[in-house]
Amino acid sequence: MAVRIDEVLRFMEESLAAVGAPLAEAKAQADLLIHADLVGHFSHGLNRLELYINDMTNGICKPAASPVILKESAATVWVDGAHALGATVGNFCMDLAIKKAKESGVGWVSAKGCNHFGMAGYWALKAEREGLIGMAFTNSAPIMTPTRSKNSANGTNPIAMAAPAGGGDSLVVDMATTTAAMGKVEIQMRKGEMIPEGWALGPDAKLTTDAELAFEAGRLMPLGGFEQTSGYKGYGLSVMVEQFCSGLSGSNPSHKVPGWSYTQTQPPNMGQCFVAIDPERFAPGFQGRVKDCLDHYRSLEPVDPALPVLAPGDKEKKNESITRERGTIIYPQPQIESYNKLAVKIGVDPIKTEFI
Amino acid sequence: MAVRIDEVLRFMEESLAAVGAPLAEAKAQADLLIHADLVGHFSHGLNRLELYINDMTNGICKPAASPVILKESAATVWVDGAHALGATVGNFCMDLAIKKAKESGVGWVSAKGCNHFGMAGYWALKAEREGLIGMAFTNSAPIMTPTRSKNSANGTNPIAMAAPAGGGDSLVVDMATTTAAMGKVEIQMRKGEMIPEGWALGPDAKLTTDAELAFEAGRLMPLGGFEQTSGYKGYGLSVMVEQFCSGLSGSNPSHKVPGWSYTQTQPPNMGQCFVAIDPERFAPGFQGRVKDCLDHYRSLEPVDPALPVLAPGDKEKKNESITRERGTIIYPQPQIESYNKLAVKIGVDPIKTEFI
Repeated sequence: MAVRIDEVLRFMEESLAAVGAPLAEAKAQADLLIHADLVGHFSHGLNRLELYINDMTNGICKPAASPVILKESAATVWVDGAHALGATVGNFCMDLAIKKAKESGVGWVSAKGCNHFGMAGYWALKAEREGLIGMAFTNSAPIMTPTRSKNSANGTNPIAMAAPAGGGDSLVVDMATTTAAMGKVEIQMRKGEMIPEGWALGPDAKLTTDAELAFEAGRLMPLGGFEQTSGYKGYGLSVMVEQFCSGLSGSNPSHKVPGWSYTQTQPPNMGQCFVAIDPERFAPGFQGRVKDCLDHYRSLEPVDPALPVLAPGDKEKKNESITRERGTIIYPQPQIESYNKLAVKIGVDPIKTEFI
Repeated sequence: MAVRIDEVLRFMEESLAAVGAPLAEAKAQADLLIHADLVGHFSHGLNRLELYINDMTNGICKPAASPVILKESAATVWVDGAHALGATVGNFCMDLAIKKAKESGVGWVSAKGCNHFGMAGYWALKAEREGLIGMAFTNSAPIMTPTRSKNSANGTNPIAMAAPAGGGDSLVVDMATTTAAMGKVEIQMRKGEMIPEGWALGPDAKLTTDAELAFEAGRLMPLGGFEQTSGYKGYGLSVMVEQFCSGLSGSNPSHKVPGWSYTQTQPPNMGQCFVAIDPERFAPGFQGRVKDCLDHYRSLEPVDPALPVLAPGDKEKKNESITRERGTIIYPQPQIESYNKLAVKIGVDPIKTEFI
């Protein structure tokens, strides 16, 4: 079902405000969530709103709390996220990273007491819009099975990096350090299709291509898959992210973060890390060099002429441009119906869909 | 053949000095190379000495040159490596990153005019020994084929990160952003064995498991392999590394770096990036938290009891400890014979092997 972009925003803002978010924070959180739907990563958009609302109604998330600076130096800040909304902590921390980068060349901010902060790339892009290199990292509940292990230990622990390339162009890397996100396994399950080898292990901690078994097992493989195809590299990257997040901030490590659910009783107390780097402190002409690289990749001869070589971030930029031109976002009917039931419960006008 | 560790060092130092390296730089370069042999990554150790010597005799590498600071701020330095030896530039840059990290919390150094700097992990560990998080990145000649592309565009563009865990323990991630290094393909070729799917493409830019074809083609796959197993993530990481290296420094981008060979006539002018972060600027107790994570991974139940779960870096630490206890490094006989011919040519005493 098609919903106008401004109507999705209206619904998300009013819903968040209805359960206690100050208006500015509700707006910031809605902007974070709609970014995911605009670029085509629907798992992290409206789809997650109900979980955020649940976190607020059960007291795990404190939407009116203000993050606090615990320690700072020329290029670093240690922050207590105070269990505020993901967007509240993200904006607080990335604003600090940007300020430090402009003053000292680099801003490196690590926060404890965090809730989920949506797509990591959203935060990297916030610095990119200031002409800086941006990076963002978060840990999360254990769902990645380290190489050789039977059980999961780390979260999907994503790495995001964005850099400006001039003229509206940019480089955007935004990736879980697992081969695939659980949302992708879920999509295959709903379609009744198999998953490729290397995405996940089954309940016996061995290879499975059965999406349902993989979904139940909660054992995503690190990027690279099995040991012989260097899965230990994806595992290594997830451990690196872990130290930027929980190591520096003193939050829960991934293996102590509770799974995100409607029955959760403990705050996740996740760790997050936000970095900004000012390229003007290095060789002049950074944006032109980024642009040259991106264009070089785009001009490479493809194996299949129907599948052109993309620069990292191109797919998402194209999705966003198509969606903005159309003016509407398409959601599955059951999702809209479910949110319209929630709307009644929290006293918000239901989502108005378009006839198309 | 077994060679005493101090004898390998003696041979490397004297060889480098014989072709023009100042003694201190020869010692530094030998220390860099022997690290690779000690931790078991033989491709980057004595194996590469002849290429470094060749770079010096043909004038591509300027062993007596001094790197220069071109620009600096509280947390950043832009460096011209002046085509000095890899170890000379690495020590110059990582010393600056460490100094900035101690002063400002973070030191971020990017250098142009670089030659090969050996194992990236060696540089990350230099910061780790100071109680800091260390990171190192380099670009290199094109050998990684971006997702969907017929031809290679980026180097193996490695990511290294090290963090102290107290009591001599540490976390070390040191990985090419390709699935496998070309050295691994070469080993399979020499053994007459196949390579796993996902390591490399053949001369037709399609899947091959033939090590010889893969070696000739020079088309390593990014970490993750094909698109359906998220090879675009490894590609994305290589582009991120590219911007830290050539983007910030103004060096050659990977796709303009000449392949490392005995017939090379142009200096590679690679870009390298060195980062240090002071964990003391964040939550107290960083090293204990890193240690807790590493021990958590090590205590995970393995799928195969004979293959325990390792923390990133454990394999290399074990190799180093075995080698140091034995006191000798084992090299293939043809390698020793080849170096002893070189010794005559440059007027250095040949490598003395042990009877064992």
